[in-house]
Amino acid sequence: MERTAACGGDAGGLDALFRPRAVAVLGATGRQGSIGREVLRNLMVGEYQGKVFPVNPSHDVVMALKCYPSVLEIPDPVDLAVVIVRKDLALEAIEACGRKGVRALVIVSAGFGETGTPEGREREARLREILGRYGMRAAGPNCMGVINTEPEVRLNASFARLTPPAGPIAFVTQSGSLGESMLELAAERGAGISMFCSIGNRVDVDACDLVPYWEHDARTRVIAMYVESFLDPRRFIPVARRVARRKPIVAVKAGRTAQGARAAQSHTGALVGRDVSYDALFEECGIVRVTSVAELFDVSAALAQQPPAPGPRVAVVTNAGGPGILATDALVGLGLAPAAFAPATTAALRAALSPDASVHNPVDVLAAAGAADYDAALRSVLDDPGVDAVLVVFAPPIMVDADPVARAIVEAWRAAVRGRPLVACLMARSRSAGEGARRLREAGVPTYPFPEEAAKALAALVAHGTGRARPEDPPPEIRPAGDGGSALLAAARARLRAPGEPRMLDLAEGLALVAAWGIPAAPTEFPASLDEALDAAARLGWPLVAKLDSPAIVHRSDVHGVATGLADEGQLVRAWRRLGELLQQHADGRGRIALQRQIGDARETILGMSLDPLFGPLLLFGSGGIHVEVLGDVAFRLHPVGPRHAEEMIRQVRAWPLLAGSRGEPPVDLALLRDALVRLSALVAAHPEIVELEINPFLVAPAGRPSGAVDVRVRLTD
Amino acid sequence: MERTAACGGDAGGLDALFRPRAVAVLGATGRQGSIGREVLRNLMVGEYQGKVFPVNPSHDVVMALKCYPSVLEIPDPVDLAVVIVRKDLALEAIEACGRKGVRALVIVSAGFGETGTPEGREREARLREILGRYGMRAAGPNCMGVINTEPEVRLNASFARLTPPAGPIAFVTQSGSLGESMLELAAERGAGISMFCSIGNRVDVDACDLVPYWEHDARTRVIAMYVESFLDPRRFIPVARRVARRKPIVAVKAGRTAQGARAAQSHTGALVGRDVSYDALFEECGIVRVTSVAELFDVSAALAQQPPAPGPRVAVVTNAGGPGILATDALVGLGLAPAAFAPATTAALRAALSPDASVHNPVDVLAAAGAADYDAALRSVLDDPGVDAVLVVFAPPIMVDADPVARAIVEAWRAAVRGRPLVACLMARSRSAGEGARRLREAGVPTYPFPEEAAKALAALVAHGTGRARPEDPPPEIRPAGDGGSALLAAARARLRAPGEPRMLDLAEGLALVAAWGIPAAPTEFPASLDEALDAAARLGWPLVAKLDSPAIVHRSDVHGVATGLADEGQLVRAWRRLGELLQQHADGRGRIALQRQIGDARETILGMSLDPLFGPLLLFGSGGIHVEVLGDVAFRLHPVGPRHAEEMIRQVRAWPLLAGSRGEPPVDLALLRDALVRLSALVAAHPEIVELEINPFLVAPAGRPSGAVDVRVRLTD
Repeated sequence: MERTAACGGDAGGLDALFRPRAVAVLGATGRQGSIGREVLRNLMVGEYQGKVFPVNPSHDVVMALKCYPSVLEIPDPVDLAVVIVRKDLALEAIEACGRKGVRALVIVSAGFGETGTPEGREREARLREILGRYGMRAAGPNCMGVINTEPEVRLNASFARLTPPAGPIAFVTQSGSLGESMLELAAERGAGISMFCSIGNRVDVDACDLVPYWEHDARTRVIAMYVESFLDPRRFIPVARRVARRKPIVAVKAGRTAQGARAAQSHTGALVGRDVSYDALFEECGIVRVTSVAELFDVSAALAQQPPAPGPRVAVVTNAGGPGILATDALVGLGLAPAAFAPATTAALRAALSPDASVHNPVDVLAAAGAADYDAALRSVLDDPGVDAVLVVFAPPIMVDADPVARAIVEAWRAAVRGRPLVACLMARSRSAGEGARRLREAGVPTYPFPEEAAKALAALVAHGTGRARPEDPPPEIRPAGDGGSALLAAARARLRAPGEPRMLDLAEGLALVAAWGIPAAPTEFPASLDEALDAAARLGWPLVAKLDSPAIVHRSDVHGVATGLADEGQLVRAWRRLGELLQQHADGRGRIALQRQIGDARETILGMSLDPLFGPLLLFGSGGIHVEVLGDVAFRLHPVGPRHAEEMIRQVRAWPLLAGSRGEPPVDLALLRDALVRLSALVAAHPEIVELEINPFLVAPAGRPSGAVDVRVRLTD
Repeated sequence: MERTAACGGDAGGLDALFRPRAVAVLGATGRQGSIGREVLRNLMVGEYQGKVFPVNPSHDVVMALKCYPSVLEIPDPVDLAVVIVRKDLALEAIEACGRKGVRALVIVSAGFGETGTPEGREREARLREILGRYGMRAAGPNCMGVINTEPEVRLNASFARLTPPAGPIAFVTQSGSLGESMLELAAERGAGISMFCSIGNRVDVDACDLVPYWEHDARTRVIAMYVESFLDPRRFIPVARRVARRKPIVAVKAGRTAQGARAAQSHTGALVGRDVSYDALFEECGIVRVTSVAELFDVSAALAQQPPAPGPRVAVVTNAGGPGILATDALVGLGLAPAAFAPATTAALRAALSPDASVHNPVDVLAAAGAADYDAALRSVLDDPGVDAVLVVFAPPIMVDADPVARAIVEAWRAAVRGRPLVACLMARSRSAGEGARRLREAGVPTYPFPEEAAKALAALVAHGTGRARPEDPPPEIRPAGDGGSALLAAARARLRAPGEPRMLDLAEGLALVAAWGIPAAPTEFPASLDEALDAAARLGWPLVAKLDSPAIVHRSDVHGVATGLADEGQLVRAWRRLGELLQQHADGRGRIALQRQIGDARETILGMSLDPLFGPLLLFGSGGIHVEVLGDVAFRLHPVGPRHAEEMIRQVRAWPLLAGSRGEPPVDLALLRDALVRLSALVAAHPEIVELEINPFLVAPAGRPSGAVDVRVRLTD
C-alpha cells in the first residue's frame, strides 16, 4: 500500500480509518431502526474483511456476535472504533479507546459543537484534548461514517442505507444526508465509489487530510467534495493545487448566495468565509465547481472515465433535431463552443450518411440511422483536429435497436487516436435503452438521460483540461523602495491608537505606501499655505486637482471637496479658498488640502484588497467608477497574484472591452495595470496589519501616457 | 363536451383529431419494429373506445383486425386517419381520405418540407392544397402522433413507446423524440398527461390551435410546450395572453443561443425569429420559460397541482442542514427570497420543536424529527403572513419512517387556510421513501429528489403568480401632431428611390418624425449659411452643439463631425468653418450642418425599434452609450408597449440604479422616459414601412430640466 505524508498528519493514521484490521462498534445493538444496528449490519452485509467486535454493556450477543461490555475487554488489537453511544457517555468511551490503543475513530455520536451550546462546545474541546493525548485520528463527531470498497477491505462503517458499488470516485462530505444521496446516485447510475468519508464537525479529519491521502490511492480517479466551509483554506490550497493537476477534484460548495451562507453558518456554527473567496480558491486550485449533488455525481463520473478536453470546441452528433438544439444551447450557455468542421470532415460525413442528414454541427444522422451511421459520424468528428470533445445523442426510435448503436459508439471512441473525450445522451427509459446505457457506461462512456446533463459533464472535462494546462504563475519577487512603508505604518499605528478612531491612513501615507512598492501614483503635494500651493503648482504642472484630506471627511465628494481641472493660478486660488472653508465647516480645520497633477484621458479602475478572515488577502480588480459601485462588476483572486492571474482578473470583468479599446478608443496600458496588481499583492503580503486597501480610482491611460493611483484608502487592523 | 372557437379554425375540427369515433390506420402492418405496427398496437393496448380500421392493400388482416385495401373501402364513417405510408404514396392516400370524408389526419409520413429539398417543399405545398380543398385538419407531417387519455376516448394514435398515465398536463411538441421523453417522465414520476400532440412540420395544427382548444378542456390544468419557432407569433400572442391568466403555460424554447438557433433553423427549415423576441413574447403572455425537458415536466407537475404563489418569499423546512442550504442557494439564485418570519412564528416553532432546532429560515427540525415536528413546523410557516410559498425537505434517516412524515406534510398543507403553495423534496431512493413520495404526489404535493428541482418548481409557481397578477397594460391612444409624419415619410421614400442608396431619413426628418408623436427632442435648426447660423443661435440659446448631417457620413463621430459646448459666437464660427470643410472632404458637400441646443447634466439612454420578421416591432430600451454598445445592457418588449411595460423595461436594465439616482445624483425623469417609449410604440405601429428606428442618445435629465432626442436614425423598408 502506497503511503503519503498527509498535510494534516501521518497517512498511517488514515489507513487505520479506511483499512483497519479490526473494528469495534461502541453502542452496537440489534434494535430495529437504531444506528447501532445499521452500522453493525453494514459491516456484516458489506462483507468487511477484518474482525468486528460489538461493544455494549447491556448485551452479551448482538447479531450473532459476542458482545463486550467495554472496548478494553476485547482480547484482540482494535484499529478502528465506531462510536455511537449517547453524548453523555461518548467521551468516557473514547477515553477507553485511547487506553485500548485504538488508532482511529468514527464518531457518529452528536451533541458537540454543532449544537451551538456552551456544553456542546465544551464537550468538543474535551474530545479534541483526548484525541491529541492518544494520537488518535477521528472522523466526526456528528458524522455518518466511512466506507472503503477496496476488495481486500470492504469496510462500510456507516449507517448509510446501502453499500455503494466499487468504483473510481472518492467522496468527502460535510453533510451526512447529501452523502447518502451521493451513494444512492452511485448505486443507481452505476459509477461507483472508492472511498467515502462523512466528516461531520471535523474536529480532526478534514478534506485537507483526505485529498492527499486519495492522491496516492490508485483506485481513486476523481475526488468529489460537498463543502460548506474549509477550516483552514490556506493550508488546503497548496495541497489541492498539486493534486488537482493529476486527479480531478470536483466540489459543490453550499452557501453560494449570501442567504445560503447565513444558513450554512447557523448549521455548522463555523466561520464560513465569503463565497467569492471560495470561487477564487477553486479557480486557483483548478477545482471544478458545480452547483448540485446530482451534478457532482454526473460530473465526477465523466471525469473518472474520460480524458480531459484540451479546449472548448464540441461536436454534437444526434439522431433527433430537438435534442441536438438543446445540447447546443446548453453547451453555449456553459461557455463551450460548437466546433467548426474541417472540409474533409464535412465531405466524409456527406459520403457516409443519408442524403437528408445534416453534415454540419450538430450532425443529424436522422431517426432511421443505425450503428453504421453512428460509427461513421463519430469516427469523422473524433478525427477532426478542430474538435476538442464530442457529445453524442441517441434517442432510440422504435425501429432501431439500442444495443448495436451503443456498441458502435464504444467502438468508434476506442478506435479514435486523438484521445478526445466523449459523453453520451441516451434519451429513453425503455429496457433496451437501459441496456444500451449500461453498455456505454461499462465501456467508460458516461451516459446521461438528458442533453443538458451531458453538456454539463463535457463542460467539467473542459474545465479540468483547462485547469491542468493553466501554467503556474509564481509571482515575481518585488523589492520595495526603502523599507516598503514599514516606518510609516508604524507611525500611523502609533497615531491612530485612540479608541473609536477609524484606523485609516491619510492620503499622503496611502500614496507613499503604494509608491514604495512601485505602483505609480499621481504626483501629489500637501502645501501648508496658499503660497506653498502656488509653488507646488509650478512644480507639478497644470492642470491640477485640489482635494480635501481629512480624517473627519470620509467621502470628500459628498461635501464637494474635490476641485478638478484647475488650469491656472486664478482657478487654484479660488479652489484653495473654497476648500479651506469646507475644512473649517466640516472638520473643524482637521486635515489639509492635497494638490495633485491631473491624469487626463484615462479609464477609471479599482485595485483593492480585503482580508478574508479565513482565506487571507483577497485581491480585487474592477473597471472603476459606477461599474464597481453600482453594477458590482469586479474580479477576485487570492494572494499571491502573479502576472498571468492578474491579467485573467482584468479580462474577466464585464467592462473589459472598454479597457481593451472600443468605439475607436485606444486600449489602456494593460502591462502597467497587470504589474500594479502584482505589486499590490506583494505589498499586502508584506504588511499583514492591513485589513483593507483600495486604490480608487487607479487611472489607466494608453501606454506611454501618465497613469496612476489618485486616491488610496488603507485600513489597519484594530 | 365544451367547445371553443380556435384561433386557427373551428374547434370541431380538433375534436375529430382528439375525440374521433373511428380511426383508420393507413400503412398498418404487423411487422415487428415498424411504425405501422406500433400505432395500431398503441390504439389497441391503450383501449381506444372507438373503432379501428387498418388500411393496407398488401394485407387482409392485421393484428386480428380486418384490413382494407383503401380508406374508401371502409364501410363506416371515419373521423381520423393516421397516415404512415411511404412519402411517394402519402398524397394519394390523403386525397382518398378527403374523398372518404375523413375530418382529421395524423400524418406520420416524412419527406416533406423538413428535408429542405425542392421536392419536399413541393410535396408540402400540395398537401396544404388537399387539406384546404377538403377542409381536413392535420397534425404533421413528420410527426409522432396524438394522445388523449380521457376515459371516454383513450386515444393513443402515436408510435410512442408507452401510453402515459392520465393527468392534468397537455403537451404540444415540435420534436417527436422530446415528446417521447416527456411521456416517459410522466409515466416515471406519476403526474399524467391529458392530451399530447406532436405537430411535426405544422402544415396545419399548431400551438395556436391547441392552446385555445385546451383552454376549455376541463381535464387540462397546465399547458406545456416544446417550441423551436412559432409560425405566426402575432396571432399567438393575444390567445396565449388570455389563456395564461387562467391556465398556466410552460414552454421550453430551443435555440436560446445564437448557435442553438442556427441548429434549429437547419432542423426545421423554418424562420425562427430572434430569441429576445421569444423572451419578450413569453414575458408579454405570462408564459413560464424553462430551459430543459426535465424542467418542463417538473414545473408542469407543480403548476398543475399547486396554487400560484402571490410573491417570492419562501420558507424552507428541513431535517438536514446541507439540503436546507442548497435549497436556499437555489431559491436565491432563481430570484426568490427567504421569508423573514413574524415573531409569533418563531415563538411557535421554538415551543413546538426540540431545543437544538433552528427556528429561523431555513427551519431545521433536526434529523430525529418525526411527523409531529413536521406538522408543527409546517402549520406555523404556512400561517405566517410573510410567507408566500413553502419548500419542505425530508431526508429520511434510518430511524424515522417516511410514511407518517409524508402524511403529516399532506395534512398540514390541507389544513392551511391561506392557500399558499407547497413543494417537497424527498431525498432518498429507498422503498419507504418512494412510497412517501408517491403519497405526497397523489395528495397533490409535487415532490422532487433534489432541493434544486423543488426550488425551480417554486420559482415557476411564483412566475405564474406574478404573471397572472400583472395588470393589463393597454397603451393609451396617442394622437400625433398633424399627419404624424406621413407626408415626410412619403417624401423621403420618393427621394430615396435610387437603388443601393441606404434608405435612411436625414436628421431633420428623424427629429420631425419623433416630434410629431410628442417625443421631446433637442431644439434643432439647419441654417444654410453662417449668417443664418448666428441668427439660429440667438433663437436656440447657448451652449450649442453643431454637427454634420450627411447621407455620405454614417458615423459622424468617426470624422469628428460633432462640436459640443459651443458657448459663444466665436466658438460657433470656428466650428461652422471646420464642419463645412469636413463636409467637402468626406461627402463632396452633400449634406448640411445642424445646430442644436445642448442638453446638459443628463443621462444617455437609447430608445429603439427593430422590426422582427416574425414578431413585428420589437422595442428596445438601453441605458445608453457604452452600456448598450459594449456591454449589451438592453431590454426588449413587443409592440404595443403601455406605460407599465415601458417602466418594466427601464427598470430591467442592469444600469437602472444609475437612472434611479446613485452616488448622491438625483433620479432622472422616469415619467418622461416611460412616456417616450409608449409614444415610440405608437409611432412605429402607425408606420409599418419603418424597419429600424434608433433614438441614440435620448438624453434624460431630472424632472423639470430639458430632456430629449439628440439624434434619430430611421431606416425604411426596401
